[in-house]
Amino acid sequence: MIIFDRPGFPNPARIRIVLAHKGLESAVQFVSVDLIGAEHKTPAFLEKNPSGVLPVLQLDDGTYISEATAITEYLDNLDGEPALTGRTPKEKAVIHMMQRRAEAEVLDPVGIYFHHATPGLGPLLQVHKSPDWAGRKDWGERNGQRALAGMAAFDALLSRQDFLAGEHFSMPDITLYAGLMFADAAGLGVPDNLDHLIAWRGRVSDLPSVRERSGQEFGAEDLRRLGF
Amino acid sequence: MIIFDRPGFPNPARIRIVLAHKGLESAVQFVSVDLIGAEHKTPAFLEKNPSGVLPVLQLDDGTYISEATAITEYLDNLDGEPALTGRTPKEKAVIHMMQRRAEAEVLDPVGIYFHHATPGLGPLLQVHKSPDWAGRKDWGERNGQRALAGMAAFDALLSRQDFLAGEHFSMPDITLYAGLMFADAAGLGVPDNLDHLIAWRGRVSDLPSVRERSGQEFGAEDLRRLGF
Repeated sequence: MIIFDRPGFPNPARIRIVLAHKGLESAVQFVSVDLIGAEHKTPAFLEKNPSGVLPVLQLDDGTYISEATAITEYLDNLDGEPALTGRTPKEKAVIHMMQRRAEAEVLDPVGIYFHHATPGLGPLLQVHKSPDWAGRKDWGERNGQRALAGMAAFDALLSRQDFLAGEHFSMPDITLYAGLMFADAAGLGVPDNLDHLIAWRGRVSDLPSVRERSGQEFGAEDLRRLGF
Repeated sequence: MIIFDRPGFPNPARIRIVLAHKGLESAVQFVSVDLIGAEHKTPAFLEKNPSGVLPVLQLDDGTYISEATAITEYLDNLDGEPALTGRTPKEKAVIHMMQRRAEAEVLDPVGIYFHHATPGLGPLLQVHKSPDWAGRKDWGERNGQRALAGMAAFDALLSRQDFLAGEHFSMPDITLYAGLMFADAAGLGVPDNLDHLIAWRGRVSDLPSVRERSGQEFGAEDLRRLGF
């Protein structure tokens, strides 16, 4: 299997955590995509994923799988022990409910904030994000507020349970973790008063599959190219 | 089990098709929610689903499951024969990849178009959609264009295969079908030149689980209340 990604970015980090959690890191070959140079918007890459986003998994039969949920379903089910996506109908349902919420209420709004309310990944990529749209900055700021509201909602949930889908670490924990990592990088941060969310983040950070492999910051080379 | 929904609306229709396809209609009790009267934004409903959207499935143990993907995972896996969400790792992956695309590229943008570029569900509900945001109409129109681009992308895919995940009807076909139903209701429609998409829509419409149960139009009572 091949993973086309870029270490240190939020969605690639999600799949790197999944691979580590499943003990599959040595089963894949990583191919780095030049995200800052807009390689993921070139015709050659769009053949792999028409949505033009990372990461993409290529199976041994040549099939391309994109979208983090889809890639996670594949990798988690390979060994017949779906620890991250659920074993029973109820586990699967709660995990997918929380996955959608973690994306819609935190990770996706943080991405919109980053690309529209901040300089994002720079002018080359901004072409793909409609730079001349009048409401763009306003929309970005609104999504930043939405992400903060989402964090508060998850804080309330985590006052009652250890992880997003209950008592066990699963796919949506990875998604929210990547969302908070992205919020830090985008300058939104996590409000200090969200004690339960911060405690949960500590629990996730301490997991062996997360601690050394997720890349909690953008890579140094990418940061230099972004002008930081 | 209880389903809280409103017949004829896009997301409720998705789950009604799933129930019909799985032969589970008689296993659930339907409770109608006054979507036009904003009942789904009241504290009592937000206890069931903090995201304030329909439908919601209540399990016999009291657990509430929201989000169409999550409800579909539950219902489809109950009998150990997941026909709609995939049996093998690869089937699950392709289905979830297409599910995310059908939502992100058609159903969700159509919803944004409907709520922001048209009168939507009227002034009572518009309060929950930030009516005084300057870029609102522009954003709605942009999403209408995005939905049309998404339809064209699926048309290209369907020139090569019968259904979204390959040769068999599955969860993302239901999602895209609901997206086109919503596009019709919102006045966007499906462009005449998308022959493959239109032929696929005919194949889906002819399925017994879809033909009589999805409610291809908004309910007559709701339309009157919306002023049509």
